[in-house]
Amino acid sequence: MPDLPSGNAVIGQSGGPTAVINQSLAGLVEGLKAGLAASGQVKRILGMRHGVRGLLKDDLVELTGISTAQLEAIARTPSAALGSTRDKPDAAYCDKILAGCLKNDIRYFFYIGGNDSADTCRIVSEKAAAAGYELRCFHVPKTIDNDLLENDHTPGFPSAARYVALALMGDALDNASLGGIKINVIMGRNAGFLTAAAALARGALSKGAAPADRAAPHLIYLPEVPFSTEAFLADVEAVYSKLGRCQIAVSEGIRDETGAEIGPKLMRGKGEVDAHGNVQLSGSGALGDGLADLVKTGLTPKGGKAPRVRADTFGYIQRCWPGPSPVDANEARDVGRFAAELAAKGETHATVIIKRVSDAPYASACARADLSAVARLSRHVPEAFIAGTNDVSDAFDAYCRPLVGDLPTLARL
Amino acid sequence: MPDLPSGNAVIGQSGGPTAVINQSLAGLVEGLKAGLAASGQVKRILGMRHGVRGLLKDDLVELTGISTAQLEAIARTPSAALGSTRDKPDAAYCDKILAGCLKNDIRYFFYIGGNDSADTCRIVSEKAAAAGYELRCFHVPKTIDNDLLENDHTPGFPSAARYVALALMGDALDNASLGGIKINVIMGRNAGFLTAAAALARGALSKGAAPADRAAPHLIYLPEVPFSTEAFLADVEAVYSKLGRCQIAVSEGIRDETGAEIGPKLMRGKGEVDAHGNVQLSGSGALGDGLADLVKTGLTPKGGKAPRVRADTFGYIQRCWPGPSPVDANEARDVGRFAAELAAKGETHATVIIKRVSDAPYASACARADLSAVARLSRHVPEAFIAGTNDVSDAFDAYCRPLVGDLPTLARL
Repeated sequence: MPDLPSGNAVIGQSGGPTAVINQSLAGLVEGLKAGLAASGQVKRILGMRHGVRGLLKDDLVELTGISTAQLEAIARTPSAALGSTRDKPDAAYCDKILAGCLKNDIRYFFYIGGNDSADTCRIVSEKAAAAGYELRCFHVPKTIDNDLLENDHTPGFPSAARYVALALMGDALDNASLGGIKINVIMGRNAGFLTAAAALARGALSKGAAPADRAAPHLIYLPEVPFSTEAFLADVEAVYSKLGRCQIAVSEGIRDETGAEIGPKLMRGKGEVDAHGNVQLSGSGALGDGLADLVKTGLTPKGGKAPRVRADTFGYIQRCWPGPSPVDANEARDVGRFAAELAAKGETHATVIIKRVSDAPYASACARADLSAVARLSRHVPEAFIAGTNDVSDAFDAYCRPLVGDLPTLARL
Repeated sequence: MPDLPSGNAVIGQSGGPTAVINQSLAGLVEGLKAGLAASGQVKRILGMRHGVRGLLKDDLVELTGISTAQLEAIARTPSAALGSTRDKPDAAYCDKILAGCLKNDIRYFFYIGGNDSADTCRIVSEKAAAAGYELRCFHVPKTIDNDLLENDHTPGFPSAARYVALALMGDALDNASLGGIKINVIMGRNAGFLTAAAALARGALSKGAAPADRAAPHLIYLPEVPFSTEAFLADVEAVYSKLGRCQIAVSEGIRDETGAEIGPKLMRGKGEVDAHGNVQLSGSGALGDGLADLVKTGLTPKGGKAPRVRADTFGYIQRCWPGPSPVDANEARDVGRFAAELAAKGETHATVIIKRVSDAPYASACARADLSAVARLSRHVPEAFIAGTNDVSDAFDAYCRPLVGDLPTLARL
C-alpha cells in the first residue's frame, strides 16, 4: 500500500468542450469512489465550476454523493457539465490555484483538457512541492484537435471526426445532386486531423487517384501543407471542369508558405482577436465566404456565368453533436478511471495517454506519461498521413476509420 | 377496373434535396411494380436525371429492373439519387417536357418536389390535355421548408427538424459551458417552421416564460414575425445580463416591418442573386456574421470589453444529414407509394398530401388533393404556433415533437 495523503479531490474541465468530456468526468468520479474514496484517503469529491476559475472563486460543486444514475446521464451528455474556461494560467494564477487547494484541503487535483491543462497541472504540482504541500496532480486528455503528443489519439477527436465524416457523406450527395463547388471549413487551427477525417466520407480509399477521380471530398487542405491560392484555384478547376462539381474540405487553419494564416488575410481586417492573440476563426463564416469569393472570381470565364459556389463553416456543432463515436465514449471513460487508479497507486503527478494495442480488431489501452511530455507541446498530422498537396493517405484512413464507429452504407444509382 | 393508358412511367426529383427524398422514389418504384407494371399498363419505369432537365436532354435512367436490395439502399441514402434541378419551368419549358413525354411514350409523369414542382405537373397536365395526349401527372410532396398548403407537414421537414433540434441541444450545452452569445442561422427563407424546430431542443416547454427563464434556445426569430434590430439587441441584452449567456435561433429569412429581408442589408451588397432574383442566403455566413457584429457593437459597454459572440450558419448539412427521422422516412415512402396507387385507380392528375390522423399516439395518412391547391402557393407558420416576437408556442411543440423521433435525454449538474 503506497503512502497516500488524506483530504479532498477536485476535478475540472477546461478548453473547448467535446461530445465525451463528461465520460471522463464520470470515469474519474467512479474511479475515485471505487478506490481512494472507498479506502478513506479521499473524503470529498468536488467539481470546479468553469475550470480552475471555480477554484479561485470558491465555486465548487459536491460530487461525493452523486448517484450512479445521474452520473450515467451526465456521462452521455455532450459538453462540459462542470462548465469550462479559456483561462491559461501563468505562475501567478497557479499560486491562486494552490491557495484554493489549501483552503479546500485538496490533495488530489484532476484536470481534463488539452496541452494547456497539462501545463497547469505541471506548474501547480511544482509549486505545491516547493511549498511543501502534498498535492497529487493528474491531467486527463481531451481535445477534438487530436494534437497531444504521446497519444495515439485524444478523447473527443473520434466523435468530432465521426460528425465530420457523416456531414461530408450527406453533403457530397447534396453537391452531386445540384452540382457546383462546395467548400466545407472544418475546425483545427494548428493540427489538420479533424479536416483529414473528411476523407472517411469516401466509401473507397483514394489510393493516389487524381482529384477528379477520387470519391468526394475531392480536395482536402490541411494546415500542415502550405496553401497557395493559385494552386487551390487550379485544383478546383481541374475537378469542376471534369465533373461539374467539386467538394472541398479545408481546415480553418490553412496557411501560406511563410506560415501566415489564410483566414485573417481573407477576412479583410474584420477578425476578432482572442485572449491568446489569435484571430477568431470559428464561429464566423469569413474564411469560407472568402474562399468562395476567390473561386467565383477565379473560375468565372470572361463574359460567362459564375459557377455555383457555396461554403459551409462547420461550427460548434462538430464538437458537441449528441451522437458520439462509441469507441470515443468508452475511451474517454477509461482515461478518467485510469487517472483515479494512478492516484490510488501512489503516483504523484502524471498524464494519462492512449496507446493503440491492435489495429484489427482495433484495441487501445491507457498508460501514464510525464506531464512535461504533453504540456504546452503540439502534435501535427505526420507526413505519412499526407498525400501530395490536397489529400490524405490511405495510412490516415487506416488510422482514423476504427475510431469513429460504423458509418452508414450509402448507395448511388 | 378504370380505363388506363399503356406506356412508360417517368419519375423526377426537384429542388433542394432532403434526407428522405429517395424514400419517395423507392415508394413510387415499388408502388408501380406492384400495380401498373404488374398489370401491364406501365412497360418501363424511367428516372429523369436532374429533374425535368433530364427529360429535355434525354438523360433518363432505367429503373424497371432495379433490385429490391438496391432500391432499399437508395431509399436509405440522403439527397436526390436521380440528381435535382433548380429549373422552374414556364409554359415554353413545359412544351419541351411534353415533347419529351411523347418521344419516350411516357403516360405517367411523377414529380417529387415543392410547390414549383406541383405547378410543373399542373402546366404539363393541362398542355397534354390540350394536345389530346393522354398523360397522367402526379406531384409527390417534398420540402424541408414545410411550406406546402393542405399538408399537415411535408416529407423532408421532420428529418431537417430533427437535425436542428439535436444541433441546438448540443450547442446549448456548449454555450452554457463557456458562456457568451451564440447565434444559429437556420434555413427557411419564407417559412419559419425549421427555425421553430429549434425549440424542440428544450427538454421542457416554455409556457410563456420570459426569455432568460426559458431553457435554451432563449430567443427564436421567424420570418413571419417582423424583425427589429433594436428589439433584437434588447432581447439579447436581457438574457445575457441575467445568465451570462444567450442561445439564439434565427431564420435566414427574417425581415423588417416593410417585408425587406435583413440578410441582404447586413451583407453590405455582397450577396449573390440567384435565378429567382433572390439574394443567396444559404451557403454563406454573411447574415450570421452581420448579426454577430451588431450584437458585439451594441452590447459592448463604453470603454468595456465586448461580449463573446459566435455565429454558426447551419448549411446544407441540415437537409442531407444521414440520420433521418424514422417517422419521416416512413411517410416519405408512403407518399411515393400512394401516388402510384392514385395512378392505378385511374386518377388523371393530383398531388399527395399528408393528413394527421391522431396526435397521441401520433398517426398520419396519405390523401389526394388537386394540383392547384398546392401549386405555387406557400404556407407560413400560423399565428397559433407563434408566441410573442421571439418564441414559438407550446402548440408548435405539440405539433412538431411527434415528427422528429426520439431525442436523447441530456442531464445537467
